[in-house]
Amino acid sequence: MGGNSFGTLFRVMTFGESHGPALGCVIDGCPAGLLLETEDIAAELRRRRPLGGEGASTARNEEDEPEILSGIFEGRSLGTPIAIIIRNRDQRSGDYDELREVYRPGHADWTWEAKFGRRDHRGGGRSSGRETAGRVAAGAVAKVFLKASNTGIRSWVSSIAGIDIPGPEKPGFDIEETEKNPFRVARSDYVKEVREKIESLRASGDSAGGIVTVSVTGLPPGLGEPVFDKVSARLAQAALSLGGCKGVEFGSGFAAASLTGSQNNDTIRARPLDAEAGFKNSLEQKTTFSAFDTNNAGGSLGGISTGEEILFRAAFKPVASIGKIRKTVDTSGRPRELSVKGRHDICIAPRAAAVLEAMTALVLADLILLRRADRV
Amino acid sequence: MGGNSFGTLFRVMTFGESHGPALGCVIDGCPAGLLLETEDIAAELRRRRPLGGEGASTARNEEDEPEILSGIFEGRSLGTPIAIIIRNRDQRSGDYDELREVYRPGHADWTWEAKFGRRDHRGGGRSSGRETAGRVAAGAVAKVFLKASNTGIRSWVSSIAGIDIPGPEKPGFDIEETEKNPFRVARSDYVKEVREKIESLRASGDSAGGIVTVSVTGLPPGLGEPVFDKVSARLAQAALSLGGCKGVEFGSGFAAASLTGSQNNDTIRARPLDAEAGFKNSLEQKTTFSAFDTNNAGGSLGGISTGEEILFRAAFKPVASIGKIRKTVDTSGRPRELSVKGRHDICIAPRAAAVLEAMTALVLADLILLRRADRV
Amino acid sequence: MGGNSFGTLFRVMTFGESHGPALGCVIDGCPAGLLLETEDIAAELRRRRPLGGEGASTARNEEDEPEILSGIFEGRSLGTPIAIIIRNRDQRSGDYDELREVYRPGHADWTWEAKFGRRDHRGGGRSSGRETAGRVAAGAVAKVFLKASNTGIRSWVSSIAGIDIPGPEKPGFDIEETEKNPFRVARSDYVKEVREKIESLRASGDSAGGIVTVSVTGLPPGLGEPVFDKVSARLAQAALSLGGCKGVEFGSGFAAASLTGSQNNDTIRARPLDAEAGFKNSLEQKTTFSAFDTNNAGGSLGGISTGEEILFRAAFKPVASIGKIRKTVDTSGRPRELSVKGRHDICIAPRAAAVLEAMTALVLADLILLRRADRV
Amino acid sequence: MGGNSFGTLFRVMTFGESHGPALGCVIDGCPAGLLLETEDIAAELRRRRPLGGEGASTARNEEDEPEILSGIFEGRSLGTPIAIIIRNRDQRSGDYDELREVYRPGHADWTWEAKFGRRDHRGGGRSSGRETAGRVAAGAVAKVFLKASNTGIRSWVSSIAGIDIPGPEKPGFDIEETEKNPFRVARSDYVKEVREKIESLRASGDSAGGIVTVSVTGLPPGLGEPVFDKVSARLAQAALSLGGCKGVEFGSGFAAASLTGSQNNDTIRARPLDAEAGFKNSLEQKTTFSAFDTNNAGGSLGGISTGEEILFRAAFKPVASIGKIRKTVDTSGRPRELSVKGRHDICIAPRAAAVLEAMTALVLADLILLRRADRV
Repeated sequence: MGGNSFGTLFRVMTFGESHGPALGCVIDGCPAGLLLETEDIAAELRRRRPLGGEGASTARNEEDEPEILSGIFEGRSLGTPIAIIIRNRDQRSGDYDELREVYRPGHADWTWEAKFGRRDHRGGGRSSGRETAGRVAAGAVAKVFLKASNTGIRSWVSSIAGIDIPGPEKPGFDIEETEKNPFRVARSDYVKEVREKIESLRASGDSAGGIVTVSVTGLPPGLGEPVFDKVSARLAQAALSLGGCKGVEFGSGFAAASLTGSQNNDTIRARPLDAEAGFKNSLEQKTTFSAFDTNNAGGSLGGISTGEEILFRAAFKPVASIGKIRKTVDTSGRPRELSVKGRHDICIAPRAAAVLEAMTALVLADLILLRRADRV
Repeated sequence: MGGNSFGTLFRVMTFGESHGPALGCVIDGCPAGLLLETEDIAAELRRRRPLGGEGASTARNEEDEPEILSGIFEGRSLGTPIAIIIRNRDQRSGDYDELREVYRPGHADWTWEAKFGRRDHRGGGRSSGRETAGRVAAGAVAKVFLKASNTGIRSWVSSIAGIDIPGPEKPGFDIEETEKNPFRVARSDYVKEVREKIESLRASGDSAGGIVTVSVTGLPPGLGEPVFDKVSARLAQAALSLGGCKGVEFGSGFAAASLTGSQNNDTIRARPLDAEAGFKNSLEQKTTFSAFDTNNAGGSLGGISTGEEILFRAAFKPVASIGKIRKTVDTSGRPRELSVKGRHDICIAPRAAAVLEAMTALVLADLILLRRADRV
Repeated sequence: MGGNSFGTLFRVMTFGESHGPALGCVIDGCPAGLLLETEDIAAELRRRRPLGGEGASTARNEEDEPEILSGIFEGRSLGTPIAIIIRNRDQRSGDYDELREVYRPGHADWTWEAKFGRRDHRGGGRSSGRETAGRVAAGAVAKVFLKASNTGIRSWVSSIAGIDIPGPEKPGFDIEETEKNPFRVARSDYVKEVREKIESLRASGDSAGGIVTVSVTGLPPGLGEPVFDKVSARLAQAALSLGGCKGVEFGSGFAAASLTGSQNNDTIRARPLDAEAGFKNSLEQKTTFSAFDTNNAGGSLGGISTGEEILFRAAFKPVASIGKIRKTVDTSGRPRELSVKGRHDICIAPRAAAVLEAMTALVLADLILLRRADRV
Repeated sequence: MGGNSFGTLFRVMTFGESHGPALGCVIDGCPAGLLLETEDIAAELRRRRPLGGEGASTARNEEDEPEILSGIFEGRSLGTPIAIIIRNRDQRSGDYDELREVYRPGHADWTWEAKFGRRDHRGGGRSSGRETAGRVAAGAVAKVFLKASNTGIRSWVSSIAGIDIPGPEKPGFDIEETEKNPFRVARSDYVKEVREKIESLRASGDSAGGIVTVSVTGLPPGLGEPVFDKVSARLAQAALSLGGCKGVEFGSGFAAASLTGSQNNDTIRARPLDAEAGFKNSLEQKTTFSAFDTNNAGGSLGGISTGEEILFRAAFKPVASIGKIRKTVDTSGRPRELSVKGRHDICIAPRAAAVLEAMTALVLADLILLRRADRV
């Protein structure tokens, strides 16, 4: 198993190189009876694309048109594998000729070559961010499945290029704003500052890192499997499986390391399945009934979902492909200087948000199905 | 699969409740020919125990004696499953009678009950930290396997109770010191301050969080599987599978989100497999030959090991069982106040270090075996 | 994964060598809430033992006492791993000293050595039939789970030492008889002939093959997964995983190869889930309501259970350990002559019946849980 | 996991309905560096097609053109997933309108509907034999991998429509003949008799069963994993995963049940890895050096390959779609009479041979890779 498979029951295999004929996925284990249209997938693929406008963080013009090859009949899933492909277009493989013999710093060029003894140098082959199209397609199906059980996944960029953007705990946060600006920040009053910073980095041939926050609401308690497949553990694997992700934290996260028990642990005020217990939702900006007084846990205890909002943050390193000249070596070991040309994002976080949502959906769809086997 | 299985080729299943007859593990896939003694396992189990002395962060006196039931013949592994059990002793189940009908805040009591419809209330059952004995036993075998290929795993507490302890980049760091003080800090000059802080928290009936840093040296390039099973992704799952772990970061980690590409990405100065290229090791405090000029990546690019040191940090929340009175509910939903008695750690980080090492060993042993299938 | 793991949701790992400290299993994925006693497991282990009496097909006196180490609390399964061990006793390892340097014909001695570079020569190590104790223990738990859903598994020896014994289609068949004679034949009028044949073989230092028939009744339609995990495919793997099993057939089996479509396919007379449709049961000797007119399919179509009786036959080769002198080589490649001494079965089929039932239970418990993920 | 995934390291997911847009497969785990062309796959897909000529056992004219979407770069495998699709053409879905509301006897129509609550009635959807195109494509890649290690897989129809055709043990057997006649029999002198029998069945609106024999030569000793993943167990699962397969036997198979130990077990005359030991090959009609005197075991002992020829037989039931009128029910439970029209095989065995070879290749490629993890 070469690492391109994910999940136990809602199981996905993805495939495709950046400049090969196509990318895609196969889902083995999507339950039968799900209403699914090609547009459900296309819509998520668009969310993964750079948002338009002069401040867009990348310049490649990808038109991703998914085609469903199997598993859907008369608008519903059959219970058989759902295969989805996306043809690669707008390829300028010639842009990459120089990279056949040079390793880009910060990229997987040489680690993959060390592993496999060869690599597709065009756009990084399968180590390209373009690989994520297959996951987003699969995640789109998982999202439809989750929506049917009232579980919603949203995300926003909470830090970009060193600018921290306050979350829903402060007024002015509007999750819908993330679909309107190219940086996926949820505060319109921050867009100008972020744009200027990104443009400044672009002008200097440099790039930026960022942090994405993911929120899952409406998830029932009891999801996650003891010990190794805790909901947080599975989500952590999912997050770190994104190229450029260097860290993840849940709830109070790294800050919890400096807190005391009496500050951090969440007191309980209702049984989790009580009729009167509702779920606090940071996105809706209202505290309805909740089983816990606070949510420092970030939605899971002992790896099992509490029913509260699942909240985690993933950190992304700055894009490695930059215009500035960097030292490296070629495949013969000779020192080289490299300035990466071509169409590249300045910061991956805005686009990674859609991929993180997709991965989150894949994890949760799987855990929801696994949950059905919990009791006699 | 109930979440108690881990790995693909070096595959482990662990079992056992805190107050049941025994805990343990079975390893299916340990290669034949490994020299293995019971003492290899016993030694790691001792490292998981609280270190002695008045400042020790827990008080339970566990004497874990592993017994190997299968898979070893005349001192070497047969290639068949290695089953190891550890009998539970020193159980004072009566300590937990109150918890049969009350949910402890910050614990898995009610999430597990929400999931399974029942729970073993004695010491948290399988959600207890005692569960990790099985993993440490399995990890001990993995460590022996890794040692045979010159891969070393070390760890230290880099932050505890709000006190940050400088790493190997500053003089005075001594990894061997971690085996001498009960807090697993690698600087003798910090022990007194940490001890006083921990004792102060104990006196006030409170607890502390902490951060553990893990270092892996001697790992060859090329480990990790593309996309979902990146070495960082698998290690992230491993870290978050520990009870109380709330975050993980690799290399420059969350800090990378605020850096630019030219600051963060590691320039290359040699081919990774060049004869003259050695590996920089933060523990040995010397910069030998290295293929990269820096290691902000934390040892992997595109999810595949670079051959540099793998370096990651895991954050642990404060221990949830505290003497201070906390609000909660009982199993009938009635409000209750709870002060957790019994023997508990003040901070889990020092003991988690041994478990993190074990999990790291399990991930790497698996990836080393998977690596053998990379090429025709 | 070294081949000692089985199942997806109801997942089992078994371990143990014939002359090591213990054998056993861990079940990861048994649903919570199952009523389970040690006696449930002990009873199945007794069924795996040679039946008493002078005609018993083996002479080793094994007293297998299972111990449950985890996963059960106050009489019910917790949803956590159930570990069961069986200590090895009555070992006469000295019996096997000669085999350290000789390969027994018909045994796994040299194939395992070719694979692993070493072997435990005492009683064949893990390639011994004794290995099956672990599976039978796991299967016993699966049987309890199946019984709770009214699914029954029975088996009988339908051919032994060349003597074919008619099945339930002829009068005189009594499934309870299988628990009374040492050959597990279901017809008391055949016991004498079989005993004489077995005794004659024993006297001449030879051994016999046999066929076991397995019947599963009460299984709902819809079990089995398309394509690779058909119920018949999984059962075939299960059957052939038994040492000495050389073939398996379902329903009309090999005979179907000589039939025409109009002779073989089963016409349908009711919808499978109709209220009025009952299930024909060869064991109860009555044809109640059924959805099909015949059951040449042996209980599955397209790999999915029909709701009719699942019926399959597994062929076992003669026991390889015989008193007659056989040619072989030693570990240096020198020709040797070998007459295997010690306590051995003359025919494995009677004891294999209990193991086949256990494996069948493991397959079906897994498919029943998987079935829960079929639909949205 | 919905049953459409197969293998551990050389892992395949297949997809596609008979009358959907496309069928195909993704292989996750094919080692890097394999020379692979589209023609390698196309050639195997042609072998799966009905052979031409008036006696061809089916009439559908499928032109399967595989397209490789990923995983191959400059003629060699990259180590990344290899996705292959085959567009469906020549569909006459209208032929199947009647079947929307009727269950065909002997088909999976109603079991799949019982399972999933719906089905694609056009040609049986994914339960169609057409599903095997995806496996054959994947198996073609596995075959290329095996060929690189000198392992050859051949097959022939050894019984069809009640006519038994002698194997290589009798003169006149010519394996190349199987590619020349539409029945895949290896003896030209039997073709006329078989053709007449098939034509006679076709004329009467009936169908036939058959048996396929598979031979694997050049496989090294030591393949297969202990206990559950014996090479025979995995091949048995593989064989029974074919639609219409009702039994499988290895070596002396069911006949072994009537033999004695002294008749059946294979005496040994050399160490398996001795320099002078060659491998007897029934196909080459010559007995070269061999480690065993006979091969009743069919190539494995204790589930591990001996190095001798792996030889097994798989029985196929008569094709269920026949012209003769059969009783059944419709989806409302009303009795119906059905005569299946359209293009159907009379006997599936000749085409199943290519699929069996593909499945055999998938099993062995996986076991060869798993073998690499056997020893330290």
